[in-house]
Amino acid sequence: MSEIDAVIDLMRRRYACHAFRPGVAIAEEDLQAVLEAGRLAPSSFGLEPWRFLVVRNPARLPELQDACFGQPQAVTCSALVVILASVADMDPDSATLRTRLAREHADDFAAGLAAYRQFHAATDTRAWANAQCMLAAMQMMLAATACGVDSCALGGFDENRIGALLGIDLKCEAVALLLALGRCAQGPGDKRRVPLAQLTEYR
Amino acid sequence: MSEIDAVIDLMRRRYACHAFRPGVAIAEEDLQAVLEAGRLAPSSFGLEPWRFLVVRNPARLPELQDACFGQPQAVTCSALVVILASVADMDPDSATLRTRLAREHADDFAAGLAAYRQFHAATDTRAWANAQCMLAAMQMMLAATACGVDSCALGGFDENRIGALLGIDLKCEAVALLLALGRCAQGPGDKRRVPLAQLTEYR
Repeated sequence: MSEIDAVIDLMRRRYACHAFRPGVAIAEEDLQAVLEAGRLAPSSFGLEPWRFLVVRNPARLPELQDACFGQPQAVTCSALVVILASVADMDPDSATLRTRLAREHADDFAAGLAAYRQFHAATDTRAWANAQCMLAAMQMMLAATACGVDSCALGGFDENRIGALLGIDLKCEAVALLLALGRCAQGPGDKRRVPLAQLTEYR
Repeated sequence: MSEIDAVIDLMRRRYACHAFRPGVAIAEEDLQAVLEAGRLAPSSFGLEPWRFLVVRNPARLPELQDACFGQPQAVTCSALVVILASVADMDPDSATLRTRLAREHADDFAAGLAAYRQFHAATDTRAWANAQCMLAAMQMMLAATACGVDSCALGGFDENRIGALLGIDLKCEAVALLLALGRCAQGPGDKRRVPLAQLTEYR
């Protein structure tokens, strides 16, 4: 199979698991591969505005399920990766921002910082960093499928409750997405998508 | 190589191309594979809040480059995929929304619509749909790499100018991201990332 056929096949096999088999441990190497895939994602200015909080202690899951409006995936999963969007660290005057920007702009740091400062002033940092986190999340879901681990992205949650439960300072970070990982209790359903001809236009 | 090793390898090989070799055509089958990867991306409620506008006519590129603050990728690329976030179509009363929601909620459409209506009322639809588009964009970038096509995501642009140039009604759709595709004039640089230990925390 060509590489692109293998990649499209992987994308077809990934599906959102709606209930996992509880009590199935996720292998450490699979979890690490999923996190590495997130780490390798691209980001604007190469800033990696994310952090991954991994909840593996099953005793923590029921309260997190509550904060996810009762969604069963949040309590039946083997691990819940909370993807946090960096907000305060993306301030043009933060040390983190300057370190990361300097990596990409070794030769022209002042120009890079000036351009970033202009971008930052014109941007809703919270919404922008949240959107960037989807790039990491997508890579994580694909890596999970490649490991034989099922996943479900959970976008519906009470951010304040998640923040309180996990001790996240929501002035500094936003909860972008929760990624539940485990072994699915059901198989995949049919993948329904709008036909490409309806989605695309050429100029 | 195991599937996960192949996937991580693919993710390591993807890089942001900063200048393409002009005049290199992208093969039709590669372009279609990239678009298919976008189409296969997951989305909240399975709503696919995106559309792909493909600019292949090189005569259109200089004005688009202008709207991208002069970024060379926008004019040297072989194709520019404009990823549009659906805003108006995500209204709970739109026909598109209802058709797509009915696919996922064949048996409990009323309950699905009520839940969606609540979500929609509490959500900045534009920011949400924009973020969803990043899932499609990430799959497209990976598919491009698997085809041997180089890519660069362009997040810096004047949305109003892009809208005017391409005839996009920005009340109905938002410009989420531009994805430049082609053959890179340079090779990849070093992939710099924050070490995983600094990005992750366990609970």
